[in-house]
Amino acid sequence: MPDRKTKSDREPVSRRAALGLGVAASAAAAVSGAQAAPAPQGAAREVDVVVVGAGFAGLTAARALRRAGRKVVVLEADGRVGGRTKAGRVAGEVVDLGGQWVGPGQTRLLALAEELGVATYPQYVEGKNIIDVDGRRVAYEGEVPALGPQATAEFAEVVGKIEALAAQVPALAPWTAPMAAELDSQTIESWLLANARLPATRTMMRLLVRAVMSAETSEVSFLACVAYAAAAGGFSPLISTRGGAQETLFDGGAWQMAAKMAQDLGPAVVLNAQVKAIAQDEAGVTVTTAQGAWRGRYVIVTAPPAMAARIDYTPALPAQRDGLSQRMPLGCVIKVHLAYARPFWREQGLSGLVISDRTEFGPWFDHSPLKGGGGSLVGFFDGGPAQRWADRPAAERRAKVLKDVALYFGEAALSPVDYAEEVWTRAPLQRGGYVSVPPPGALTAFGPALRASVGRIHWAGTETAEAWTGYIDGAIRSGEHAAQVVGGLL
Amino acid sequence: MPDRKTKSDREPVSRRAALGLGVAASAAAAVSGAQAAPAPQGAAREVDVVVVGAGFAGLTAARALRRAGRKVVVLEADGRVGGRTKAGRVAGEVVDLGGQWVGPGQTRLLALAEELGVATYPQYVEGKNIIDVDGRRVAYEGEVPALGPQATAEFAEVVGKIEALAAQVPALAPWTAPMAAELDSQTIESWLLANARLPATRTMMRLLVRAVMSAETSEVSFLACVAYAAAAGGFSPLISTRGGAQETLFDGGAWQMAAKMAQDLGPAVVLNAQVKAIAQDEAGVTVTTAQGAWRGRYVIVTAPPAMAARIDYTPALPAQRDGLSQRMPLGCVIKVHLAYARPFWREQGLSGLVISDRTEFGPWFDHSPLKGGGGSLVGFFDGGPAQRWADRPAAERRAKVLKDVALYFGEAALSPVDYAEEVWTRAPLQRGGYVSVPPPGALTAFGPALRASVGRIHWAGTETAEAWTGYIDGAIRSGEHAAQVVGGLL
Repeated sequence: MPDRKTKSDREPVSRRAALGLGVAASAAAAVSGAQAAPAPQGAAREVDVVVVGAGFAGLTAARALRRAGRKVVVLEADGRVGGRTKAGRVAGEVVDLGGQWVGPGQTRLLALAEELGVATYPQYVEGKNIIDVDGRRVAYEGEVPALGPQATAEFAEVVGKIEALAAQVPALAPWTAPMAAELDSQTIESWLLANARLPATRTMMRLLVRAVMSAETSEVSFLACVAYAAAAGGFSPLISTRGGAQETLFDGGAWQMAAKMAQDLGPAVVLNAQVKAIAQDEAGVTVTTAQGAWRGRYVIVTAPPAMAARIDYTPALPAQRDGLSQRMPLGCVIKVHLAYARPFWREQGLSGLVISDRTEFGPWFDHSPLKGGGGSLVGFFDGGPAQRWADRPAAERRAKVLKDVALYFGEAALSPVDYAEEVWTRAPLQRGGYVSVPPPGALTAFGPALRASVGRIHWAGTETAEAWTGYIDGAIRSGEHAAQVVGGLL
Repeated sequence: MPDRKTKSDREPVSRRAALGLGVAASAAAAVSGAQAAPAPQGAAREVDVVVVGAGFAGLTAARALRRAGRKVVVLEADGRVGGRTKAGRVAGEVVDLGGQWVGPGQTRLLALAEELGVATYPQYVEGKNIIDVDGRRVAYEGEVPALGPQATAEFAEVVGKIEALAAQVPALAPWTAPMAAELDSQTIESWLLANARLPATRTMMRLLVRAVMSAETSEVSFLACVAYAAAAGGFSPLISTRGGAQETLFDGGAWQMAAKMAQDLGPAVVLNAQVKAIAQDEAGVTVTTAQGAWRGRYVIVTAPPAMAARIDYTPALPAQRDGLSQRMPLGCVIKVHLAYARPFWREQGLSGLVISDRTEFGPWFDHSPLKGGGGSLVGFFDGGPAQRWADRPAAERRAKVLKDVALYFGEAALSPVDYAEEVWTRAPLQRGGYVSVPPPGALTAFGPALRASVGRIHWAGTETAEAWTGYIDGAIRSGEHAAQVVGGLL
C-alpha cells in the first residue's frame, strides 16, 4: 500500500485550502478549458481509441493509452467530468456529492491520489456511534455494531457465512462458482430469512446492505451480494470505517482527481457530447454525438450497462449483452451534506455515525471540519428510502433529513447553516448509484457479457472491475484493464 | 364472449387461403402503401396525439382516437407493424412468428377478430400429449399433466395456492395487496422450494413458468407471477390449451389484425420512424424521429419500459419511472416453426404437444395443417434455453431443434421440408418477448410508474393492461384505455 499523506481534522484550514480547494479551483478551470478548447471539426475526427464517459474509468483508460503514445478522445455526455463523483458546495466548502471514501486495499485509488498530490485524512471516529434497531437504541464505540449479545453473535455468524461463500466465488466471474445457480436464484432477503433468526440481525443486515449496495435485500441477488463482498476481500471491509471502505477521505474531495486527470488530457476530453450511436465496421468504429462524430479503431464504453443500452449500436449488440443491460439496474441513492456552526454532537460525546431503522435518512457520518471550524454531516437515503424520496420536492426532503437527524442529535440539528444534496436517480445521465445491482438470475445467465468485448467495443466502468466493484478504486482498475487490452490490439 | 367463427383443420385449403392468406397479401400491400404515402413535410407536422409504436396497443389507441375525430400519427421504429406479432413464412404459408393464440376471456382480441373478419380455429388437441419430467416419460390425454399420483396432487395444490393468492392481488396494482412486500421479496424459485416438496412438481412448475412467462423461476418476482395469474383470471388459464390461453388460433395469423388496422389508418402510420426524443412543454409534445419531428398535444408510448427508456426525454422522466424501466427486462424467447410433408406424429396417436426437461427446445405444439395438407409444429426456446441459444449460429439452433423433436417423434423429425424462426432477443427493436418480467423488488417500489402519466406522456402496451398482461388481448385493452384517457383530456 502506498505511503499515504494524512491530515488530522485539527490541521489549519489554510493548509486544507492549499491542498484541496486550491486544486479544486484550478481543476475546475482546467475542465472549462477542455470544454472550450477547439475540437477538430469536420467529418473525420480520427483517433486510435474513443472513450465514452469521463468518469474515473474513462479518464484512467484515456491517460493510460495516451501515455502509451495513442491518440484518444473522451466523450462525456455531461457538462462536467467525474461520473458518479461530483463536486458540490456546502457552507462555502467544496465537498463530494458522489463517491468520497477510500480504504485499505483500494490500492489503485490510493496510488492515484499519491500521484496527483491529493492528501487524505481519516474519517472521524472519536466518541460513540448510535445504533437503533428493533426498538433498542445503544451508543457504542468501535466497529462492531452493539446489537445485544445474542444478535451480535448471530450477526457475526451471518457475516462469517457470507465471507465463507465469498472466498469461493471468483470476483471476476461469480457465475462460475459451483453454487452460483443456487445463490443467484434467490434474493438476499430470502437467504437472510433462512440464515438469521433474530429480528435485530435481520434488520441490521437490511440496513447494511442498503448502505453498502444502495439497494434493498429484497431486490438484489444473493450471488451479487457475495460477489460484491468477494471483490472487496470480504463483507466486513464493506461495512467498516476503521480498516474498511469508509476509513479515509480526500482533502478537497475525491472528485478533484477526475478533474486533474481531465486537465492533463486537455482538449481530448469533450464535454456535453452525449454519445447517440456507435457503429462498427471492419476497419473501426464511428461514435456519433450531439457534437458530431469521432472515428477510432476501438471504443471503450464506461457507462454502466443500463445507461450504455441507451446508445444505438450498429450492428445490434448480441442478445446476451442487451439482456444484461436490461438486468443491471443502478442502485438508488440521494446524498446529503449538512453544515452547522459547529460539530455540536461531538460535545455530546457522539462520533456522528447513526444507523437506525426508525429513520429513512441514514446512515450519516461526521464530515467535519468545515473551513472556519464548522461542523458537517454527510448521509444518505439509500435503496427504498431513496426510491420513495427522489421525486418529492426538495424542501420536503430537507425537512425529513433534519427531522431524522434531530431524533438523535436534538433540536440543534434543525438549524443547519447550509444543506446540499444530489439525487442520483434523478440525474439524467447517471440515473442512480453507487453501482448496478443485479437481481436474481442476471449474473448466471448474462454475467459473462459484462466484460466480453463485442467486436471493437470494449467495456469498462466499476461494474466490470476485478476488485472493489462499485467503488472508485474499481473504476480505476477497470480503466487500466481496458486500456491494457485495447492497447495490446493496436 | 363474441360468437366466434371456427374452422376445423379439415376445411379445404382454398377457404383458408381466402380467409387468411388473401388478407395477408392485401394487408401487406396496405402497409407498404402506408409507408410510401407522402408524409407531411416541414417543421410542424401537427396532430392531436402522437402514438409511439404500431403494435396492437398503438394501433388500437390510434383507431379509437381517430374514430373520436382526433388527428393521430403512429410512429413505428420498425419497417413493419405488429410489434411482438409478426408474419413469417414456412413452406409457403404465412404463420405467426410472434403472438398467435387466443383463449376464453380474451374478449377484446376476439371482438377485434370478429370486427376485422378474421376466422379462428381450434388448436389441435387430439391424441396423446407427452410429458417427460424427472426421468418419467408419459403419454396422456387432456389438460392435467400426468406427473404420477403424488406429484399430480402436489402440483394441483401448488396451482391452487397461486390462484388463492391471485384472487387477493389486484391485477392493476399488485403492489397494493396486503402481502405484496413479502411476495415481491422472493423469486418464484424461492417460493417453489418452500411450497413444493417433490422434484417432479418443482420441475413441472419451472417448465410451465418458462413457457408462460418466457423466463426462469429463478429470475422473476413471485409477486409478478401471482399478478400475471391475476390478470388472466388464474394460473390454469395460462397453462391450458382447452379452456385456456392456447385454445384457439387465427386463420392466417394473429399478425394480420395489426396489418388490417394499419391499413385503415393509412398514411397515419409511419414506418421506419424510430423515436429518438420526446420533449414536452406547456402546450404539447415534440416527438423526434429519424424522419423528422411530429408535434401533438399528447403522446402515447406503447413500447415496453425497457425499450421506452432508450428514448431521450426532456424534461427527464421522474426517478420512479426511469427506475422501473431499469427493472422490467423482457422475457427471452425464440419461436420456431417446422414444416413436414405430413403430420406424421398424428399417425403415432400423438397430439404434437411435448413438455420435457430433457430438451432445451419446447414445449412444442401441432400447428398443422399447412396448405396442401402438410404437417407443422410450432415451439419455443423460452427463458434460460432462449438465453443460451440466441447468440449461436442459426444452423446450430436448427440442429438442436430437430434433435430435440426427434427424441420424441423419431427420425422423421430430422427431415423437415421447411423451418422458420424468430430470435426475439436479437430483434433490435423488441429485444425479447413475450412480455416484461419484473424481478423481485421492482413492482412494489416502482410498479406505480407503470401506468402513471408523466405530464403529456401516457403509457400503454400489454405490460400496462388491466387484464391479460403479456397477451395481445392485454395490448388491445391498454390501447383502448390510453385512448380513452387521452381522449378525455383533448
